[in-house]
Amino acid sequence: MIGENLVTEPRLTHFDDSGASRMVDVGGKAVTRRMARASARMTMQPATLQLIRDRKLAKGDVFEVARLAGILAAKRTGDLIPLCHPLGLDSVSLEFRVLDEQTIKIEAEARVEARTGVEMEAMTAVSVAALTVYDMCKAVDRGMTIGPIELVEKSGGKSGHYLRGQDSSADR
Amino acid sequence: MIGENLVTEPRLTHFDDSGASRMVDVGGKAVTRRMARASARMTMQPATLQLIRDRKLAKGDVFEVARLAGILAAKRTGDLIPLCHPLGLDSVSLEFRVLDEQTIKIEAEARVEARTGVEMEAMTAVSVAALTVYDMCKAVDRGMTIGPIELVEKSGGKSGHYLRGQDSSADR
Amino acid sequence: MIGENLVTEPRLTHFDDSGASRMVDVGGKAVTRRMARASARMTMQPATLQLIRDRKLAKGDVFEVARLAGILAAKRTGDLIPLCHPLGLDSVSLEFRVLDEQTIKIEAEARVEARTGVEMEAMTAVSVAALTVYDMCKAVDRGMTIGPIELVEKSGGKSGHYLRGQDSSADR
Amino acid sequence: MIGENLVTEPRLTHFDDSGASRMVDVGGKAVTRRMARASARMTMQPATLQLIRDRKLAKGDVFEVARLAGILAAKRTGDLIPLCHPLGLDSVSLEFRVLDEQTIKIEAEARVEARTGVEMEAMTAVSVAALTVYDMCKAVDRGMTIGPIELVEKSGGKSGHYLRGQDSSADR
Amino acid sequence: MIGENLVTEPRLTHFDDSGASRMVDVGGKAVTRRMARASARMTMQPATLQLIRDRKLAKGDVFEVARLAGILAAKRTGDLIPLCHPLGLDSVSLEFRVLDEQTIKIEAEARVEARTGVEMEAMTAVSVAALTVYDMCKAVDRGMTIGPIELVEKSGGKSGHYLRGQDSSADR
Amino acid sequence: MIGENLVTEPRLTHFDDSGASRMVDVGGKAVTRRMARASARMTMQPATLQLIRDRKLAKGDVFEVARLAGILAAKRTGDLIPLCHPLGLDSVSLEFRVLDEQTIKIEAEARVEARTGVEMEAMTAVSVAALTVYDMCKAVDRGMTIGPIELVEKSGGKSGHYLRGQDSSADR
Repeated sequence: MIGENLVTEPRLTHFDDSGASRMVDVGGKAVTRRMARASARMTMQPATLQLIRDRKLAKGDVFEVARLAGILAAKRTGDLIPLCHPLGLDSVSLEFRVLDEQTIKIEAEARVEARTGVEMEAMTAVSVAALTVYDMCKAVDRGMTIGPIELVEKSGGKSGHYLRGQDSSADR
Repeated sequence: MIGENLVTEPRLTHFDDSGASRMVDVGGKAVTRRMARASARMTMQPATLQLIRDRKLAKGDVFEVARLAGILAAKRTGDLIPLCHPLGLDSVSLEFRVLDEQTIKIEAEARVEARTGVEMEAMTAVSVAALTVYDMCKAVDRGMTIGPIELVEKSGGKSGHYLRGQDSSADR
Repeated sequence: MIGENLVTEPRLTHFDDSGASRMVDVGGKAVTRRMARASARMTMQPATLQLIRDRKLAKGDVFEVARLAGILAAKRTGDLIPLCHPLGLDSVSLEFRVLDEQTIKIEAEARVEARTGVEMEAMTAVSVAALTVYDMCKAVDRGMTIGPIELVEKSGGKSGHYLRGQDSSADR
Repeated sequence: MIGENLVTEPRLTHFDDSGASRMVDVGGKAVTRRMARASARMTMQPATLQLIRDRKLAKGDVFEVARLAGILAAKRTGDLIPLCHPLGLDSVSLEFRVLDEQTIKIEAEARVEARTGVEMEAMTAVSVAALTVYDMCKAVDRGMTIGPIELVEKSGGKSGHYLRGQDSSADR
Repeated sequence: MIGENLVTEPRLTHFDDSGASRMVDVGGKAVTRRMARASARMTMQPATLQLIRDRKLAKGDVFEVARLAGILAAKRTGDLIPLCHPLGLDSVSLEFRVLDEQTIKIEAEARVEARTGVEMEAMTAVSVAALTVYDMCKAVDRGMTIGPIELVEKSGGKSGHYLRGQDSSADR
Repeated sequence: MIGENLVTEPRLTHFDDSGASRMVDVGGKAVTRRMARASARMTMQPATLQLIRDRKLAKGDVFEVARLAGILAAKRTGDLIPLCHPLGLDSVSLEFRVLDEQTIKIEAEARVEARTGVEMEAMTAVSVAALTVYDMCKAVDRGMTIGPIELVEKSGGKSGHYLRGQDSSADR
């Protein structure tokens, strides 16, 4: 199974040789400062987005509720994703932007000083924030969709810096 | 959008008149059998999907790990989504299908006998299952995307049956 | 308060005859609609309260963060209070009022249709909401105090209606 | 809004400039040994306190149940307080004292070696311990009150040592 | 054991026909009062058990800490056991007995009115209680063993009454 | 076992001098790499074990579900065991072996770089994995038993290396 080029052969490290799932041992990895950013888009009826914007301007803020849900979920990532390492996050923040009359974009940034990266914390934050927006608006617009959710950037650790769009693996 | 009939005016019921967020009182609603189905797509490199499929045929199953993550997350929906009611689920199941060489589809079905619907449980199940697939494959394919995530069907409760595509609110 | 009838002698029902703690069996109690209201006061420097109010008027709302923390905590009451029954809440809401230049009052109302009351859910909601206000303001005012926290009202169940101040047990 | 002395102008650091709530980035702060002590008082009917004391002397100990609830809650502080950092506590302990025939005092001490303080862990410990005492005694005394809950002492970190009563901010 | 009647052929109902794990749908089952009892034995050095007993007589009670851990774990059973239904328990209690100079027995009883049984809640309660005893005594006796852990009795539901030792399936 | 030297007298360190339970302060202990292995046996009807094995060969794997439950539980050990320190695990893995026609053995290994050991994480992992096997097979074999559960090995920290069977404390 091991070819000549050990570095490039892809394998799923969350399984051992017998096929058993496991939490990969990060004990030998260096503690470094790590950062990850992820984003999620949501598409909805213009009237739904207008309701959210009216709320924001007046009173009651869907995005603030979703932001807190995303922050709390990021702290619980290791509890939700079975093979993910528990991390003591240094920071998490979420930003909401209205892209056009029916689209919003949620972006999260997570930071930690640890032996493993925070991609899953950022991905979980935007996902649960999007689910929370869905929950609050579903009574008026069941057809809302969430996605694409994607990793935007990642730094720290031996795999180096990743910026979406500058990496061949994202070329699709 | 505001007609003469105030009853039909859309509003975000998770805020009261002062703009304060709240868990809507479902005490007066009838206990009925409720079902919801949601789905999430994921797009990845064909080589990544091939790795998942190889595993499934041999040993170590990404989808089985993701399925359990989705089931466990569904049971914790009320803990993750701030204004969502806690529900004692009767059942949750998830199905994974390979649509083409770079696309998979995750579908969840949740059931309960309760005063409020299980849309969020189904939506949460597919979202966390997709995040788990991402976690297990991210070392070989950071560019994977999750979405669209959407509600497929819903029954039970006074709002009636909803089937995506048969509802004008999904016409986009 | 201790009469001739041993039945009315007050005792701590969370212990059995041997002194062992336990979750009291509510299996024989009727399912009824139950409500509870609790409140917590907080005292702080006028400058701190002014900061909170400035935020509320402009952008960033301490009370909204605290409200969501209180709602989420109410849903987790059975997880926090060892001998408390887990309940599927029908609703929770929290209200924040500024009483004077250095005092705020947080009030929570919880509702459920169950075999046991929701006092602890309401008490937990205001307590965790107050802790959240403390957390957000502690950098500018470590001397803030929380309390008194008290049960305001309770209805449903065989012990009948309780309204603070109309009950001799609250005469202190 | 920014005066000449940037250091002394109080602001709520849990909001960014746009008013969005966030978990403050502690990545640049030094890891130091930190300690915090908090206390909560409870007032009740003398007969209620007598019941608790009788239990303690004989069998069944309200304070021991409350102590464990406080310890467990301290470990979950980051899960309960939305913008609080998750911490791997080094120790938590709680002490219960009877101050007079109707008053008890709960004091908690938390310690950690981390980038941020443990005030919230100590505050959460005494709060949940007090809620647990309330839960166990509420059947005999609904009028019990919790509070004041306050930070007693704090050390470690760049903000220096804080001892309640020796700080002008507590002069009220 | 496999007869002509396919209905009675034993199968693992937590998998569907395709081999996917799932939470079995209990929506069609009747809500009945259900009870389960489980027990766990622990074996340790006589000196260790003497330490526990000394504590109990004097101050500090290992069994009381373990009891509360068991009660709290029972309430979280659906969160720990992936395919187990979440249940709103009516009661849980644990009893500790010293069988001989090196053996203790922990027994738990759980009750609920629900569509599915509480065996796992009782089994989880004794298991986590035993783990807690181990944790508190491990510094003096790493060789302590836990087990056998077994279901003692079960009632309610269509599978009828089960009493260990009166059932052929336990004849080993 | 009690000598003249008080230092060596065994005591339960989770209680202070007054008998109050507490989380022992590990602040002064060195951060070292630590490892622990634990095991649990389960005994069942040969037909039950055959069902599990059939599943594993075909489709649907009881052990994989139990493995994930064990990994997730290990990450939550500090939440389940009241006086146990929360740890950010570096790795957890579980192995399942069929010992004979009616016996399986579950072994877990946990690793961390911390101030305190990971025995409880390994013990919790095998216990919850065993409970999960019980849950999935209980419909066909209520008489299954779990145990003995025991610590197999431990390294790191000042108490040195422990290997079951090479330690007099395990001589029973």
